[in-house]
Order: sequence, then C-alpha cells, then structure tokens
Amino acid sequence: MQRRAFLTSAGAATVALGAGVRPAAAKAEHRWKMVTTWPKNFPGMGTGANKLAELIGQMSGGRIEVKVYGAGELVPAFEIFDAVSRGTAEMGHGAAYYWKGKSEAAQFFASVPFGLTAQEMNSWLYYGGGMALWEELYAGFNLVPAAAANTGVQMGGWFNKEINSVEDLKGLKMRIPGLGGEVLRRAGGTPVSLPGGEIFTSLQSGNIDATEWVGPYNDLAFGLYKAAKYYYYPGWHEPGTTLEAFINKEVFDDLPGDLQAIVLNACKVANQDVLAEYTARNPTALQTLLSEYGVELRKFPDDVLLALRKLSNEVVAEIAEKDAFSRKTYASYQKFLSSSKEWSAVSELAYLQARDQLTG
Amino acid sequence: MQRRAFLTSAGAATVALGAGVRPAAAKAEHRWKMVTTWPKNFPGMGTGANKLAELIGQMSGGRIEVKVYGAGELVPAFEIFDAVSRGTAEMGHGAAYYWKGKSEAAQFFASVPFGLTAQEMNSWLYYGGGMALWEELYAGFNLVPAAAANTGVQMGGWFNKEINSVEDLKGLKMRIPGLGGEVLRRAGGTPVSLPGGEIFTSLQSGNIDATEWVGPYNDLAFGLYKAAKYYYYPGWHEPGTTLEAFINKEVFDDLPGDLQAIVLNACKVANQDVLAEYTARNPTALQTLLSEYGVELRKFPDDVLLALRKLSNEVVAEIAEKDAFSRKTYASYQKFLSSSKEWSAVSELAYLQARDQLTG
Repeated sequence: MQRRAFLTSAGAATVALGAGVRPAAAKAEHRWKMVTTWPKNFPGMGTGANKLAELIGQMSGGRIEVKVYGAGELVPAFEIFDAVSRGTAEMGHGAAYYWKGKSEAAQFFASVPFGLTAQEMNSWLYYGGGMALWEELYAGFNLVPAAAANTGVQMGGWFNKEINSVEDLKGLKMRIPGLGGEVLRRAGGTPVSLPGGEIFTSLQSGNIDATEWVGPYNDLAFGLYKAAKYYYYPGWHEPGTTLEAFINKEVFDDLPGDLQAIVLNACKVANQDVLAEYTARNPTALQTLLSEYGVELRKFPDDVLLALRKLSNEVVAEIAEKDAFSRKTYASYQKFLSSSKEWSAVSELAYLQARDQLTG
Repeated sequence: MQRRAFLTSAGAATVALGAGVRPAAAKAEHRWKMVTTWPKNFPGMGTGANKLAELIGQMSGGRIEVKVYGAGELVPAFEIFDAVSRGTAEMGHGAAYYWKGKSEAAQFFASVPFGLTAQEMNSWLYYGGGMALWEELYAGFNLVPAAAANTGVQMGGWFNKEINSVEDLKGLKMRIPGLGGEVLRRAGGTPVSLPGGEIFTSLQSGNIDATEWVGPYNDLAFGLYKAAKYYYYPGWHEPGTTLEAFINKEVFDDLPGDLQAIVLNACKVANQDVLAEYTARNPTALQTLLSEYGVELRKFPDDVLLALRKLSNEVVAEIAEKDAFSRKTYASYQKFLSSSKEWSAVSELAYLQARDQLTG
C-alpha cells in the first residue's frame, strides 16, 4: 500500500470524536491524543486505530482516554512521528516504512518485498529479537513502538494490461511506492507516486497502466475495479504489513506499571484483531469483485515472480549498507526469514498445498 | 497432540506457585485458581498458561491474582471443565476437543483434520461467528470461553517405517487420538491411545509403529527422535490447534467492566503470543533434530494425503449429524473454511510458493 501521497491529501475535513471509552464512574487520569496516518475511519487501518483507543479506555477503566485524529486533523499524516516524538500528541498510529527517512531499517518493521508473512513477522518481533531492535531505533526518537495491526498478504495490484512475461514489465507505468517501486524500476518499469485521490482517474484515463493498493477489502471500497480489468496476485511487495502504534517515551515511562501493560497489550490485541478482520473480509470482498463486478483474477507468471524476487533481494540487501543499525537489523531479519522458509516448507506451505491444491 | 492419557497420568507432584504478579502496593481483590490440562510448565502450553496468569496480574495492577495449577495438582486434567463449571476453580486452560463428550461440536473450537490454520481460526472466531457459537456452547456449562494459545501447523508424526503409499497405512499401529485416529482407522490403520509417558517406550520397543505429538519444539523436548527415524509432515490432523481458557461465568459476570476486558484481552494476547513462540521455536528445533540427531524428514506422498483428506472430510461431516448445535457449528465452520481456501490460494499459499518454491 504505502499511501503517503493519498494520506497527506486526505483528511483535514472534520474533527471526529475519538473512541475512548469512559465509564460513568471513572475520571480520566490521562487524556491522550492519537494522531494517525489514516483517513478517519479508513477500513482496517483507521477503524483498527479506533478500536485500539477504545480498548485502552476499556481495560484502564477510563483512566486513559484516547482521542483519535485522522490524517491532517491535528497534524499532517507524515508529521505524526515527529509530533509524538516531541509530545504534541501522546500516541501515533501508522506504518514504520513511512519513517525510512529517519532510518532505512524502519522498513523491516513494516514489510519488505518477499519478506516475512504476518505470522512470521509477529514471531520475529516477539521471539526473534525484532521488538528489541525496533525499540532501540525508536528510543532514539523518544518513542516506544508496538505492532498494532497487520494487513496479511496484500494483492499484487490492478492492471489494464496482462502481464505474461518479464518483457511486459518494461515501460509499465505503475503506481507503486517504496521498495516495491524500486524493484519495478529495476525490472524496466516506471514506478509512479500518486495521491490516493488521483489513482482512480489516472488508471481510468490511461495515465498509469497499473496500481497496487492493499487487498480486496480495501480495494473494493476504493472502487478500483471500475478502472482496471485484471487483479493480480500475490502481493510480493507487501506480504504481511505490520502497522504500528507508538507512544511518547516520557509519557509512557511516567505511567504506572499496570497502565504500561494495558497500553502495550492493547496494541498486541489490535495487532491480532486487524489481521483476523482482513482474513475474514478479504475472501468475501474478493468474491464480490469476481462475481458482481466481473474482475478477472490473474496470477503473476512464474518467470515474472522469479525476476521480481531476484531484484527484491538486491534492493532489500542494499538497506544493510546504509548504516550500522540497518546492517544489524537486516542481519537479524534475514536470519529469521531463512529459518522461517525452512519451517514454512514443512508446515504452512505444505499443509495448504495438501488441503487446497491436491487433486486426484 | 491430544494428550488425554498423558496428562491424566502427569503432574500431581509438586504444587508450584502461580505466576500472578502482585505489585507491592496492591492487594488482590480476586484470588483465582487456574486449573490446566498441562503438566506444570510444559513448553508452550503450560508456560503459555503461566504467562496468561502473569499478564492478568500485570494489567489489573494485582487486583486479580491467578495461581496456576498443573494437571492433577488440584483436579485431574480432564476434570477441569467440570471443576470450573461448578466453581471449584475460577479459570481453566486446556483445549476444546477434550470436551467432545459434552458436545461433539467442541472439536471445531480446537482443530479438525484438514481444517483452518491458526490465522484462519482467529478470523473465524473473531470475525466469522465462531466465538458467538463457542460462547453459546460454554454458557450452557456456566463458562465463558476464550482462545488463549495456538500451536500452528503441527507435524504429521514420528514413524519407524516409511509411508510410501496408502497401502503402508494398513495395519499401521499409531498413537493418534481423536478425529485423526478415526481417519487412520478408516484408512486401515490401528489408532492407539497411549499415555504420553508410555509413548517413547512403546515406539522404541516396536509396540507401536508411529506416533504424533505436536511439533519440533515440543517433540525435541520429549526425546521422540531417539525412538523413531522418520519425521513426517504436514500435520494434516491438527493444522492450527487453538488452546483455550475459560472462566466460571458467574465469577466473570460479577467482575467490573475493566477487569472483564483485561481477562478476555489477556487471553487474546496469549493466543497470539504462543503462536509466535511456536513459530520461532519450531524452525530451530527442527534444525537441531535434522543436523544433530540425524532425523530424516519425510513428506507424506500426495496419494496418502488425498486419501486422508477424503476420509477426514467424511469424519468431520459426521460431527454435524450428532445434534442441532453441532450441525450449526459445522455449517458455520465449513462455510468459513470454503472461502478461506479461495483466499489462501491468492494470498498465503500463492505467496509462500513464490517466495520459497520457485526456482529458475
């Protein structure tokens, strides 16, 4: 997804009330502002932020009241990191790859092409050293990070021409930001950055040939099926994107232990919950796209996926060359990815093939 | 896994102190006993129960103190359901398929052969109507259920002979309880129920030809590699087993809203956390088994998996015939499984194949 331009242009309209719950009897000891990179109530991401705020309110019995602000309501989407860092707001909700300007390594805490799936990401973060690295990075910015949502495997995107070979990527004008865009560029394509609000028109008018967004649940709501015929999978560029929450570190450190535990564990609940939501909503949204709107589902050909994978490995490896912290993070991530692949081959992948693909 | 006999015979030795955290300043308002079907501190399951108790203590600031009891310490493993139902203990930790004697439908809330993966299970429970069904079933027993851990895809088991065709299943004497055992029986094998403590000796002496257990993390600790040569995958019979916590409903209903939210959300955190732990520990344990102990990894042949899948579908469908609630639960589960398969084919499965299997 990576909707920088879209989000920057979105929001700013209405200041809606946050979802913090305050039981009648309790008085808020902490009134927090949560600034987000999402349009208010954006399905999955925005609603996930709302539910996180609500959960903190519920579990704290109203001692922490969190008011959620959509992108641009209080600060622009891509200033939330700095805003929470300096204490303008107590909490933020976004995705770590937005902050690669602070450190290239930040991208590993969201998603990288041909990287870890959602389940593997959680495993790396909680049991593979990932959280410790993320905390180290964000501590330098006076922030405490937490994984707070996951989209699962995204879709490859919407195309107005078929991709039958690597040749078809050459000259392809596609809205795909970040590392995925760099991979496309090296494959001969032209990655384009476009505000979300311009994607639909650009695709329909032929100014771009293709665009990625998120997956069926979000893409259906966004109406992209009206502007493109082919819906490609799999989403090699974002195979399980972790969305984040972060808290101003001084604010967090001043909390008593029970409220610290409540805030961080509310994020963990949200992390699992949003993934469960996408996993339930995507199948039905996909069915709607195929049966009601005549979308044609296409798989990227193997040779295209192979070429993209080779280029992705190069692009991701180059992150390690940026600075010492990025090198350390890359090494940790790659080691975990390597053993995850071995395990997936005998667990998730082998099982899904036996369940869903075997015929006879 | 399904370690009924093992667990009944285990434990009973020492009463260890629970992991409830009580800050110096706080006094527990609620002192709970959590009875479990696991041996005290059993990796993954038992330690997951400990961490759940600790988390409830932390988030409640010590207002709820949960003391964990291993199987047999307070009540035998398979009496915890009734014990919590009648209030002998406030909370339990086990797996729903142990209670199929109460309702055959209970098995859907743990795992069924060729059923949902961990991610899909969470999605069905939280967004597909699964939790509502589970709550309805357990309310009849004065219990409030929660998903509280997941093993992920298990392994197919340990074998002393190779399985090269369906013929090799005929006469196979394998320790495999529950629905998986019934499937093996219909394939011509002889499912055996054995206490965990007898598995090793039975396998080594040739009294049984094979056994399933959990996965590398648990199986390594259990030493099964010393008694069998071949380690088969995938674990078709338990593709993502949800472990459960349940709370006495009257006790739960009497809690204030914040403590109710803390208890249920602590279970959600544990549900994600234990899966992350297995996903991190299994790969390294598998590497140890292969490289240090000379275990030979084998995949079930396709025709064997096909035969087992066909029989599994029959066995699972028969649950629906037991009673009205089982029929309703089966219908909900099957509908979700069907759309999950469609989605997996364009997301998890397609992605993992592109990432891990493509060569060229």
